[in-house]
Amino acid sequence: MNPLRVTIWNEFYHEHTDERARANYPDGMHECLARALKADDLEITTAWLEKDEEHGLSEEVLANTDVLLWWGHCRHGDVRDDVTDRVVARVQQGMGFLPLHSAHMSKPFTRLMGTPCTLRWRENDDRCVVWNVNAGHPITKGVPLHFVLEKEEMYGEYFFIPEPEELIFLSWFDGGQVFRSGCTFTRGLGKIFYFQPGHEVYRAFHDENVIRVIANAIRWAKPPQAREFRAGASMEPVV
Amino acid sequence: MNPLRVTIWNEFYHEHTDERARANYPDGMHECLARALKADDLEITTAWLEKDEEHGLSEEVLANTDVLLWWGHCRHGDVRDDVTDRVVARVQQGMGFLPLHSAHMSKPFTRLMGTPCTLRWRENDDRCVVWNVNAGHPITKGVPLHFVLEKEEMYGEYFFIPEPEELIFLSWFDGGQVFRSGCTFTRGLGKIFYFQPGHEVYRAFHDENVIRVIANAIRWAKPPQAREFRAGASMEPVV
Amino acid sequence: MNPLRVTIWNEFYHEHTDERARANYPDGMHECLARALKADDLEITTAWLEKDEEHGLSEEVLANTDVLLWWGHCRHGDVRDDVTDRVVARVQQGMGFLPLHSAHMSKPFTRLMGTPCTLRWRENDDRCVVWNVNAGHPITKGVPLHFVLEKEEMYGEYFFIPEPEELIFLSWFDGGQVFRSGCTFTRGLGKIFYFQPGHEVYRAFHDENVIRVIANAIRWAKPPQAREFRAGASMEPVV
Amino acid sequence: MNPLRVTIWNEFYHEHTDERARANYPDGMHECLARALKADDLEITTAWLEKDEEHGLSEEVLANTDVLLWWGHCRHGDVRDDVTDRVVARVQQGMGFLPLHSAHMSKPFTRLMGTPCTLRWRENDDRCVVWNVNAGHPITKGVPLHFVLEKEEMYGEYFFIPEPEELIFLSWFDGGQVFRSGCTFTRGLGKIFYFQPGHEVYRAFHDENVIRVIANAIRWAKPPQAREFRAGASMEPVV
Repeated sequence: MNPLRVTIWNEFYHEHTDERARANYPDGMHECLARALKADDLEITTAWLEKDEEHGLSEEVLANTDVLLWWGHCRHGDVRDDVTDRVVARVQQGMGFLPLHSAHMSKPFTRLMGTPCTLRWRENDDRCVVWNVNAGHPITKGVPLHFVLEKEEMYGEYFFIPEPEELIFLSWFDGGQVFRSGCTFTRGLGKIFYFQPGHEVYRAFHDENVIRVIANAIRWAKPPQAREFRAGASMEPVV
Repeated sequence: MNPLRVTIWNEFYHEHTDERARANYPDGMHECLARALKADDLEITTAWLEKDEEHGLSEEVLANTDVLLWWGHCRHGDVRDDVTDRVVARVQQGMGFLPLHSAHMSKPFTRLMGTPCTLRWRENDDRCVVWNVNAGHPITKGVPLHFVLEKEEMYGEYFFIPEPEELIFLSWFDGGQVFRSGCTFTRGLGKIFYFQPGHEVYRAFHDENVIRVIANAIRWAKPPQAREFRAGASMEPVV
Repeated sequence: MNPLRVTIWNEFYHEHTDERARANYPDGMHECLARALKADDLEITTAWLEKDEEHGLSEEVLANTDVLLWWGHCRHGDVRDDVTDRVVARVQQGMGFLPLHSAHMSKPFTRLMGTPCTLRWRENDDRCVVWNVNAGHPITKGVPLHFVLEKEEMYGEYFFIPEPEELIFLSWFDGGQVFRSGCTFTRGLGKIFYFQPGHEVYRAFHDENVIRVIANAIRWAKPPQAREFRAGASMEPVV
Repeated sequence: MNPLRVTIWNEFYHEHTDERARANYPDGMHECLARALKADDLEITTAWLEKDEEHGLSEEVLANTDVLLWWGHCRHGDVRDDVTDRVVARVQQGMGFLPLHSAHMSKPFTRLMGTPCTLRWRENDDRCVVWNVNAGHPITKGVPLHFVLEKEEMYGEYFFIPEPEELIFLSWFDGGQVFRSGCTFTRGLGKIFYFQPGHEVYRAFHDENVIRVIANAIRWAKPPQAREFRAGASMEPVV
């Protein structure tokens, strides 16, 4: 079996500008994730906003990506529209897409959802309990009924997304908020999984359960069988 | 417009046997709900386990019920199977059904769901914050983004139900748990809304937001247009 | 009760350029629909591509529209992007949206879906049988289990949309094709209903069942309660 | 990797009583299916109504079944209730379940659905075109956009089921009917796929596409990770 080709995309901005982010992710979140997710069945590459003029996401890179992880935050607006179009089209044709944490407002995710994807937030050292509400789902394989992140940014409702196809995780925060923190969607042939943990000033991507979830989600989001999708074709009678 | 015919069914057992339940609901929860829900467009009647041999749910009563509320807890097993069949059939034909709190394990609800509907619980004076995650839904009309019940039984995940068609509320509890606390389902022509608050030793049915939700849900669950459903009929070609 | 404010938007191009379209809809489809849908509880206005520089869809018009019908076909590309943004934002804030027939590829619909919304088609005088597969839904009130359109453009699978939240109609065509012809979606507070009949060279908008479906859908798509949606707001603890 | 343990259950009645059924399936449908599905990764056994007093579905057999296929028709009522309970419970705990054709009214399927699962039918040598409406789904791997069964019993709407979680196939029939012919559901940990073809007097289980769909569905319905589901457990605070 060929390995699954994974591209981890990171805005890679806070790690240069915020001491706390740098302390947590000295090489960038993408490198931290790449190390944590390393496995024989995965072929992992990384890309970031300023890697090249196309943010490291040329036609060729995307054509050779089975599953794309995406972390972005304060520079969503700097992502080129034509690159966004390319990502969206690839998802519709089958590429898996895993927007992480503040990627809820990234261009590709909001384009695929058709909603603003806004939410309520608070950076206040909240404790976060992540609950597994879909125990039979491949994304929760080996994940306990709940796990605790000692500090995480609060992300709370109302989360302005379409009703998820499957709700996988719910998060609880000290301050009284809850959040639909793991949600699946399908757009065309492509599977999408949004997952909430991962604020740059905390350490979620060093947590084994967070990594297990992302690792499971990568395998789950594997593109389906190749299939020709002819857009807008006319068709003869079949009987 | 004819009023909507609402039947409030209550097990009506704890109110006789538990001082705290009696203090909260001296006439029974059904009477408390009937008073709180009183409105010109509703024609409310009540029934309970020992009202008569059919638990107050004769064929005639059900034939004249548009929406049925159901509260039960420790005597689920005493509900007759033929009465359960009757309730289930009426829901499938269009009667709205609102199982409240511990009715999650009632015979009609588990029959309609096809799952055990078990959950995790704790009676420990938890504070409960109910979050509205479906701001455009008729059930949340006039309901704020969140409201607090100072004490409520903890109901937590994993809640062993089919994926809800619409998730309306999520609940947060002091002890770290979360719960899918307002869920809609359709079975045939009948609409179903499960709602979590309402432990007998606390006072949820005296809370204005809880009542508003139930009042909205009654209107939402109104049976659709009359329609003949012929079960298992053969059919001629139509072209 | 205030009337529901309905705006019927039509590309209004084929009626000028195709004899068959003009014969069916001499004043334009929008006028035909406006007449057929006339009712005391509706306040209907019309707009079209070349009505003014904003296609008749100024900020003010949209702010005063509760439900927007949309028919477009060969000039989707001529709809301004800023007007599209405006329509999409209004839907997310609660305006009902009813894309009809070839509006499956209109800018607002594809933007709200996050998919190309392509399909297979054939203009060949196919007979079309429309089946009601959601008998309890308000959109099917008074609509029989099936009805026949003697001639309609074939629209067939694969229809490249997200899984509909509710499937309301399926269509059968002489040539052996089927189609998910009535589909609901929610985007934020706004309800969306796609409905297939309405090719310009046939007469679907003169059919009483087609009109009944659209009339029901308008009432169903009524915006929900007013509610302030603060985009991306921070939030204090609530406990 | 251990093989998937598949049990094919057949009523095995028409093959004794109807010449046409016997001609199509001289050893019974279960044997035909077992031969057609034979593969290295599957360990296939068969059972039938009169195999033993428990219809060949003892506790031990079910405990060792990963995916259960079910074909029944005129003797649904002869299936023991305790065996039905056992099948239902196993599905909820993770066993895959594939009700075929007239199993739409079998006891286990209707129990899991919570609806009567009735439909319209006609035995009239209709041609049936099966359309793949979920091209990215594992169940449609290698299955073309459409395939034709030259003769099949007509199964038509209204199909009295809950809204499927995923719609996979739609069927077209000569006589003008359509049908939601491939539908997925989840109940607890168990995956369910209903598939329409398979009338005893026709030859669907000799069709390569039908077999491919069932073969795919078996792999898709594989039970998830082992997980302890404690029913109705109390729970301590976690923070």
